[in-house]
Amino acid sequence: MRIVVPAGGIGGARFLRGLKKELGVGSDPVGEEPAITVIGNTGDDITLFGLRICPDLDTVMYTLGGGINEEQGWGRADESFTVKEELAAYGMQPTWFGLGDRDVATHIVRAQMMAAGYPLSAVTEALCDRWRPGLRVLPMTDDRVETHVVLDDEAGGRRAVHFQEWWIRHRAALPAREIVGVGAEDATPAPGVLEAIEQADAVLLPPSNPVVSIGSVLSVPGVREALERATVVGVSPIIGGAPVRGMADACLQAIGVETSARAVAEHYGPELLDGWLVDEADEGAAVDGIAVRSLPLYMSDPEATAAIARAALDLAAELKEQRA
Amino acid sequence: MRIVVPAGGIGGARFLRGLKKELGVGSDPVGEEPAITVIGNTGDDITLFGLRICPDLDTVMYTLGGGINEEQGWGRADESFTVKEELAAYGMQPTWFGLGDRDVATHIVRAQMMAAGYPLSAVTEALCDRWRPGLRVLPMTDDRVETHVVLDDEAGGRRAVHFQEWWIRHRAALPAREIVGVGAEDATPAPGVLEAIEQADAVLLPPSNPVVSIGSVLSVPGVREALERATVVGVSPIIGGAPVRGMADACLQAIGVETSARAVAEHYGPELLDGWLVDEADEGAAVDGIAVRSLPLYMSDPEATAAIARAALDLAAELKEQRA
Repeated sequence: MRIVVPAGGIGGARFLRGLKKELGVGSDPVGEEPAITVIGNTGDDITLFGLRICPDLDTVMYTLGGGINEEQGWGRADESFTVKEELAAYGMQPTWFGLGDRDVATHIVRAQMMAAGYPLSAVTEALCDRWRPGLRVLPMTDDRVETHVVLDDEAGGRRAVHFQEWWIRHRAALPAREIVGVGAEDATPAPGVLEAIEQADAVLLPPSNPVVSIGSVLSVPGVREALERATVVGVSPIIGGAPVRGMADACLQAIGVETSARAVAEHYGPELLDGWLVDEADEGAAVDGIAVRSLPLYMSDPEATAAIARAALDLAAELKEQRA
Repeated sequence: MRIVVPAGGIGGARFLRGLKKELGVGSDPVGEEPAITVIGNTGDDITLFGLRICPDLDTVMYTLGGGINEEQGWGRADESFTVKEELAAYGMQPTWFGLGDRDVATHIVRAQMMAAGYPLSAVTEALCDRWRPGLRVLPMTDDRVETHVVLDDEAGGRRAVHFQEWWIRHRAALPAREIVGVGAEDATPAPGVLEAIEQADAVLLPPSNPVVSIGSVLSVPGVREALERATVVGVSPIIGGAPVRGMADACLQAIGVETSARAVAEHYGPELLDGWLVDEADEGAAVDGIAVRSLPLYMSDPEATAAIARAALDLAAELKEQRA
């Protein structure tokens, strides 16, 4: 059984933990082909203080590898912020990024390997050698793609900021007029991405942000086309008209999509999406050409999340059989 | 009164603290010309993990700026080592360098400014904007000079390692066959260095390592010549045949100089050195052409250190008057 999961940060990582549990995947599949391949969003990546920071890849790696801060869902457990405080004492900008000391080491290793010429995919593999997340983590691309957000400026014009600045510094409170994946057009999928999709028994879209996480993965030329040939079942990140967590509504608004389970499925479209899981609160949501099932979608604990993963796998198997 | 002090790390920094006390220099001479200019050794500098580390400049800056770990004499007070431990967990080498979290921020700022094209002298000034050491800290040069130590290898030949590797990793226990300032020949003094020496009422050599600290400063073309024209009084780093602290004897041995107050003065030579302070234990040490005075030389507290600084200033004034 080979499963591919395009993923963002917290929602993706928690879904993956449930999926691993459901499939009985251990922490260290040395010597065997990993059952699960993650295609991680890198559009959130940012270079600060000479460090290369990949928030979504790290959230997946830390969560599956046992290093995550469970309460906040990102960053390392037992984290301190000495380096960040000292940088601020020197007057270094920006001060709004939550850079933990343990995290700094990860970014130093990554920045050093990249400066030495290693592609991000090789760096990610090296970092996972320590974390042993029990699945293969591929960045969506080795090329530099950065999500920028277009905002109104004070002079009545427009200005663009890095996604992280909008998301963290402004808490997505400034209206986003456009969300742009800078560099996406010219990017190529990282080694293994298209092959993994082609060989997948199922592709599951976790309840990650459909615009800046999954949307970013889809923006890499060739990825959407490959996914359209696969059996894809998605888990709605919207329950009862609101994001389960995070500020996905602000992103959906920016691209003119309503914040509803149905509208997100329509946005993905029936070419991409074969099946769609919605919460019981959204029972009755229907989209032409997409098989919709409803069940409890809150990932309240690993057991609840495993049940969601099971439902997604079952629907994918059912749809695949219908196709054959 | 203008004083110039070529300095290494701990010994130099502690001497400077006594000198400041003696001269009544506060922590923040904003708006006035600093009375003391330090010419800091940069031969110990090393790049690790993409960070630019200047141990001697930082020891001076932290000590005079109130951030030093008093007990060990180097590094920051209230320091933690999370980044270092995490780098080791990733398998990053080397693991022998004592890289503290607070210190990491200093090195990030420096590396970032240097990557942006600022010379080390400008970076040092920017860092001192935070620390306000109450004196002007100049690196000896903006060029890259690295002290390397030639050791025996196992095959009967020779190998060279960075000074830090010999000093910290091997605790200077491997016999040094040669000590080489790589890049020194082609270096030029940092802006302000020669001017400060020319305008100095006195140049004081603190009890820093005569080989790898003061020797390194002297190796920058033009510096020794300028010092030979100035009134220079040195404080012996050797008391009763042993270094006051550190492993200066291992360095002296490498260049064939006996570990004694007299031998170090002879090594500096009467062209450079006008006066020489030795401890009472070395009373009677005499060197042709150098005025030797004996007094208690242990820098046991700021008061004792201020008395040493006073004696050095008095001797310099006396010698300058004789010259005139």
